Amino acid sequence: MIISEDKLRSFTQNIFLAMGCSHEHAVLAADVLLRSDMRGIDSHGVARLSGYVRLWEKGRINSTPNIRVVHETPTTATVDGDAGLGLVVAPFAMNVAIEKARQFGSGWVSVRNSNHFGIAGYHALKAVENDMIGFAMTNASPLVAPTFSNERMLGTNPMCYAFPAGKYPPVVVDMATSAAANGKLEIAQRAGKPVPKGWIQDGDGNYTTDPHALKKGGSLLPLGSDREHGSHKGFGLSATVDILSSVLSGANYGPWVPPFVAFLEPPADPVGQGIGHFLGAMRVDGFRPVEDFKAHMDNWITRFKSAKAIDPDQTVIIPGEPELEAEADRALNGIPLVDAVVADLNELAGRFGIERL
Amino acid sequence: MIISEDKLRSFTQNIFLAMGCSHEHAVLAADVLLRSDMRGIDSHGVARLSGYVRLWEKGRINSTPNIRVVHETPTTATVDGDAGLGLVVAPFAMNVAIEKARQFGSGWVSVRNSNHFGIAGYHALKAVENDMIGFAMTNASPLVAPTFSNERMLGTNPMCYAFPAGKYPPVVVDMATSAAANGKLEIAQRAGKPVPKGWIQDGDGNYTTDPHALKKGGSLLPLGSDREHGSHKGFGLSATVDILSSVLSGANYGPWVPPFVAFLEPPADPVGQGIGHFLGAMRVDGFRPVEDFKAHMDNWITRFKSAKAIDPDQTVIIPGEPELEAEADRALNGIPLVDAVVADLNELAGRFGIERL
Repeated sequence: MIISEDKLRSFTQNIFLAMGCSHEHAVLAADVLLRSDMRGIDSHGVARLSGYVRLWEKGRINSTPNIRVVHETPTTATVDGDAGLGLVVAPFAMNVAIEKARQFGSGWVSVRNSNHFGIAGYHALKAVENDMIGFAMTNASPLVAPTFSNERMLGTNPMCYAFPAGKYPPVVVDMATSAAANGKLEIAQRAGKPVPKGWIQDGDGNYTTDPHALKKGGSLLPLGSDREHGSHKGFGLSATVDILSSVLSGANYGPWVPPFVAFLEPPADPVGQGIGHFLGAMRVDGFRPVEDFKAHMDNWITRFKSAKAIDPDQTVIIPGEPELEAEADRALNGIPLVDAVVADLNELAGRFGIERL
Repeated sequence: MIISEDKLRSFTQNIFLAMGCSHEHAVLAADVLLRSDMRGIDSHGVARLSGYVRLWEKGRINSTPNIRVVHETPTTATVDGDAGLGLVVAPFAMNVAIEKARQFGSGWVSVRNSNHFGIAGYHALKAVENDMIGFAMTNASPLVAPTFSNERMLGTNPMCYAFPAGKYPPVVVDMATSAAANGKLEIAQRAGKPVPKGWIQDGDGNYTTDPHALKKGGSLLPLGSDREHGSHKGFGLSATVDILSSVLSGANYGPWVPPFVAFLEPPADPVGQGIGHFLGAMRVDGFRPVEDFKAHMDNWITRFKSAKAIDPDQTVIIPGEPELEAEADRALNGIPLVDAVVADLNELAGRFGIERL
């Protein structure tokens, strides 16, 4: 099914309204999810909508949260999300960071008691809109084993760094710190295809190409895949995300992070509240005039785009380019939804008495 | 040769004094280099001393720099290193970051017109000593090709994140954003051994296991090694370091970064001044009480150390542990120096009329 952005947006808003979200929160949460679908990151968009609903039904998501700053200095803050949707908690926290940056040059917010916040890029780009450099990270349900271990200890814990440019669109580095994101595994599962060696290991810690290995006690591997190729670096990056997001804020970390899926119970012995995020903004003109920075960003991009290509048909991809191409394409041609997602969304519509897709 | 820390430190100070550094700068620069040798990162310690001397002889390092803040807000600053040793410029900049953090919660400094700053961990740990979280990055001479390219466009551009703990030593993630650091390649070169597939490519962009491939027009690969295993993520991280360190400060970036080796001339068309660094500090108590944070860091470390091990004889390594073990060992047993380094240092001693090792 191909659906227009407007239609899917209004459908998504209606689901959030039916969950009891305020109009403002429903519009915002739908905006975060839609941005993911528009940018081609299908795993983090409306495909997750029924997941949020199920967590709300279980009482694990609060649709009317009192999101608030619980600790702060002029440029740092801890936000308590009150178990709200990460889709509204993270934008609140990023606003705090941006306001602090406006006043003091930079702003940094660690968030506890939240839930899945959608794509990291959405939040980091809010800083870019204000001529700031944006940072966004979050921890997530444990699926990844550290180097030398076969125990799921970390989420795919994404890091995002976003930089404004001049004539070019922003450079957006938005990446899971695992060798492969879970969404890529799901694609292989649906296609019934093996995955490359180096993405996952089985329950005994042996490499496997079985895309279903996670369900059988396996785990994802950190970026780098094995020690020889730097998996300890992927582990280190993931640990950094975990600490900045959760040890710093008072959320759950490591294997204590509550699962996104409602059919799995959160650990009985939590070490904090909910999951954690880390968001930051730095004013470009805190370092040099914005026009100078943008001119050099354009020069950086031009030079990297023209780097010598191994295959002349495949030049260097600037971080953020594929998502922008998807956005342009989907604005024109609509958003493709796979049948399983359409069925899932229409089931929700039926349950809430909302017009089907 | 095995040498004591004290003896090597005083030798190194004497070389910097002979270059015309002030006593304060000589002591500081030697401290940065020695910390690297003590921590077992032999490639970044005194093994590089003659490299700094040759750059000074070429007029590319200024031994009496006027290091200064050229632009700032309450929590951000740009520092001009006046072509000084990165070993003294980066500590100056980190001090600025720490003072800003003390006053406003966080401090962020982008540095231009600098040179190689030693190990990133040295600088990030200065923040940790003040119960802050430390960030340190630098760009470096181009050796790494972006995904899909066979052109050297980026340095091994390290990222470092350092976190204080309670009963445990700090967690220090200090990593090149390439699949392998150049130092590891040098070890294979000396041993005449092939390197693993996925570290380097030849001039045509084919994988090679030849550790000398760099000298024949090859390039290092980003962390992730190939697109399928996430080399675009390693490229994205390296790009982030390059932009924060140099596009933000006004230093050279990408292929314009001047080479560390004095026998290669810097590009004739620089886009900035020298190389760039990025340093940051955030007060832990800007987010939660220090004791709470440290107690949870200890819990994080305890839990990760006890993660299920694939091989019971090899448990999970906490980032920073191997360097600490080296430090303890070398404090007790001295620093091992390979013959080539001893000869190199004694050649310097002869030239400057300083007592040989």
